[in-house]
Amino acid sequence: MNYSIIIYIIGMTLILEGALMAPSVVVSVIYREEAAAALLVSALACVGIGLLLRRKKPTDTVFYTREGFVTVALCWIVISVMGALPFLLSGVITDPIKALFETVSGFTTTGASILPEVESLPKGILFWRSFTHWIGGMGVLVFLLTLLPMSGGSHMSLMKAESPGPSVSRLVPKVQTTAKILYEIYIVLTVTEIILLLAGGMPLFDALTLSFGTAGTGGFGVKNDSIAGYSAYHQVVITIFMILFGVNFNAYFFILMKKAREAFRMEEVRSYLLIIAATVLLITVNVTKIYGSALTALQQSAFQVASIITTTGYSTTDFDTWPQLSRTLLVMLMFVGACSGSTGGGIKVSRFVMLIKTVGKEIETYLRPDSVRKVKMDGKVVEHEVVRSTNVFMVIYILIFSFSIVALAFNNLDLVTNFTAVAATLNNIGPGLSLVGPMSNFGVFNHVSLLVLTFDMLAGRLELIPLLILFSRSTWKKF
Amino acid sequence: MNYSIIIYIIGMTLILEGALMAPSVVVSVIYREEAAAALLVSALACVGIGLLLRRKKPTDTVFYTREGFVTVALCWIVISVMGALPFLLSGVITDPIKALFETVSGFTTTGASILPEVESLPKGILFWRSFTHWIGGMGVLVFLLTLLPMSGGSHMSLMKAESPGPSVSRLVPKVQTTAKILYEIYIVLTVTEIILLLAGGMPLFDALTLSFGTAGTGGFGVKNDSIAGYSAYHQVVITIFMILFGVNFNAYFFILMKKAREAFRMEEVRSYLLIIAATVLLITVNVTKIYGSALTALQQSAFQVASIITTTGYSTTDFDTWPQLSRTLLVMLMFVGACSGSTGGGIKVSRFVMLIKTVGKEIETYLRPDSVRKVKMDGKVVEHEVVRSTNVFMVIYILIFSFSIVALAFNNLDLVTNFTAVAATLNNIGPGLSLVGPMSNFGVFNHVSLLVLTFDMLAGRLELIPLLILFSRSTWKKF
Repeated sequence: MNYSIIIYIIGMTLILEGALMAPSVVVSVIYREEAAAALLVSALACVGIGLLLRRKKPTDTVFYTREGFVTVALCWIVISVMGALPFLLSGVITDPIKALFETVSGFTTTGASILPEVESLPKGILFWRSFTHWIGGMGVLVFLLTLLPMSGGSHMSLMKAESPGPSVSRLVPKVQTTAKILYEIYIVLTVTEIILLLAGGMPLFDALTLSFGTAGTGGFGVKNDSIAGYSAYHQVVITIFMILFGVNFNAYFFILMKKAREAFRMEEVRSYLLIIAATVLLITVNVTKIYGSALTALQQSAFQVASIITTTGYSTTDFDTWPQLSRTLLVMLMFVGACSGSTGGGIKVSRFVMLIKTVGKEIETYLRPDSVRKVKMDGKVVEHEVVRSTNVFMVIYILIFSFSIVALAFNNLDLVTNFTAVAATLNNIGPGLSLVGPMSNFGVFNHVSLLVLTFDMLAGRLELIPLLILFSRSTWKKF
Repeated sequence: MNYSIIIYIIGMTLILEGALMAPSVVVSVIYREEAAAALLVSALACVGIGLLLRRKKPTDTVFYTREGFVTVALCWIVISVMGALPFLLSGVITDPIKALFETVSGFTTTGASILPEVESLPKGILFWRSFTHWIGGMGVLVFLLTLLPMSGGSHMSLMKAESPGPSVSRLVPKVQTTAKILYEIYIVLTVTEIILLLAGGMPLFDALTLSFGTAGTGGFGVKNDSIAGYSAYHQVVITIFMILFGVNFNAYFFILMKKAREAFRMEEVRSYLLIIAATVLLITVNVTKIYGSALTALQQSAFQVASIITTTGYSTTDFDTWPQLSRTLLVMLMFVGACSGSTGGGIKVSRFVMLIKTVGKEIETYLRPDSVRKVKMDGKVVEHEVVRSTNVFMVIYILIFSFSIVALAFNNLDLVTNFTAVAATLNNIGPGLSLVGPMSNFGVFNHVSLLVLTFDMLAGRLELIPLLILFSRSTWKKF
């Protein structure tokens, strides 16, 4: 294991985190809050420790997949611990475990909160809370890659370990350029949402924070009732942008390259849009009676479906009171998740498309044993390794899910709470049902449960493997 | 598709089913019940239709895997429909859908019942109900194989399609002899249990029916409170035999061959016993307060764990009132299931052992990309095809599970009821939690839900693939 380069990259990441705290300090100063000091001290601490860690430039630049996974896992843990400082120093959260939970929930774009109410909190802290979504959405190391020239191998290994989805495709041959293009698309979409929200008369602070939450598919709001209090126009804008940020960013790259047709030919994107359309329709029919008008039902249904499938977690209504069919469909969507290569979480549409295709292939093998069929996506044969690692992903997913539910059971809360709490954190959504429904919060759990759920959020965001490798004994054995 | 041989085998199976109804007729006659006529007519109907179907001896003996799957799926549907006749003709169940549900629940050794009470029912009907467990446990086609000399290829194809587990191992080179040995072990174990139950003072009728239910890991009882009313001795005997019938029968074959050491070296059997020991211990600690004494807690815990992991479904207590940890562990065990090659259902221990090993292998691949490691079970390399079909099994399992839960949601019952009802039927267990808990029954569901759950029971018993192939369009296309 090449420790020197890992420590160096962690140092760089911390400096970047400190810099990214600056806007929050500015917001806090504008609102003349005491929290400004807490934010400034946290930022300086990040930069200070970062500078210490990157003092020694690594001479050995050997960087394999395992270094990539370990670096990404460690970086995310370190930025979460340091990112919790503003909450603790400002006194907004006094319990360190809860502060860590809230920060990890931010960076992993989960949006699950232990705060019973947010409207009274300092604006600077709320800004930082929402900004962690924006940083975590596209990835902090991907951000670092856009700034930092590093040896070739490390770029790809880091990108692979941090980006969501079963396989990472480089948009252009150079990884660094790919990272830059991704962030450019990300920024343009975010700014467009901010402008549209402002155009509807939303205050600047709300437009910024809510756009960060949408862009990262996070879900932290700045009002106690999430998005319910905003106008129908704002709710529709947020619905559309949640769906947009859940699309595989490759599609936007195709559009940029004036190949819009190829974007719409992407099987994952088509399946994603089809699933959204189908569930919105079913739920609209199912809840029309509650809302009296089909149009309101459609709007509510579309918002909640978009929020859950993209794993954002905003809400405009307490869907825990909806009929069982709607609630069940939303629970199913929790697992589906968004497209790979988007900022969304969950298992990802492409994994399901691929897995369903392997079923078709298997049945074909039984019927015609001598036929040779390959699983194809977008007309290209899916490599055996990708299918295998997708299968392994599912196994690890089921194992982590099961262990988490058993661990939470010690808390003696009801099964629906535990099940949906794990689903909501491992898939980086935010709210679940029952005691962790959209109008409740995760403060009901004890410390051990919160740590389990914190692990689940990180495992979900980093797609399981990096954390598993970090905690695998075999990783730390001498080779 | 070779239709003539499929029809011929269905005919033979029906004749066998008619013959297997004979003991129930005798029981009914002994108790001087009117139901005797219903049972006799049903038996004659089976034999009559069977004789009609097997009139034409097939000249074409071509028999491939696909014929095997289609035959097994069709046979199970046909014997279920005909097996429901005694319930309908005797008037014990008047609703045909419910009668079908009860019969499929019997043959698939699920043990989920729509009957609110059983003690007032004719003994002949109860005997048939329990006997379906015994027939379905080892498999009706495996039984047929022991009697019927058929061309070589068909034996293996039928055995593969009906036997539980990721891979079928022939104990001896001849498939027919393998089937005979399996049934001999099955009969010896069943008779031993009957004798031990009788030795404890249980009435003969109860000893017979409960032993059938244990042997097939079914779960239909003859008392309204399942096994709760029997003595501690009887409960312990049933606990032990449930565990024994959940063991891979290969282990017994090893013991017969005086290779006991190899039996205990089987990884699946060791894991199975380890899981039982661990959960019994945890639950005992968790429920000791309820029962006042650790010994009673141990006995209750062991019974329920054995009943759920082997997918039998007997109960001696309402575990739905246990603390969340115990209930959660039992829900987990529902999915684990028993050993492959046993009469138990569920996903099977060997599949989990294999899948967990693929995770270890995958992580190793990330850490040492140039290392070549194979997944091994019992010291032998697991073939790539077995791993692949296990993965596909998991995918189909998740898909059927999800669709079933959504389908049940239209009924607007609570999520725990729906979730555990699907888990209890797809894994062939019997009781779930909440409205389908051990002290309740499946009568709460409407017809559509009952049909979905009936499908799940068949899919679970036949391990998904046969039913999928039966309903796949591609199967019925001309080649």
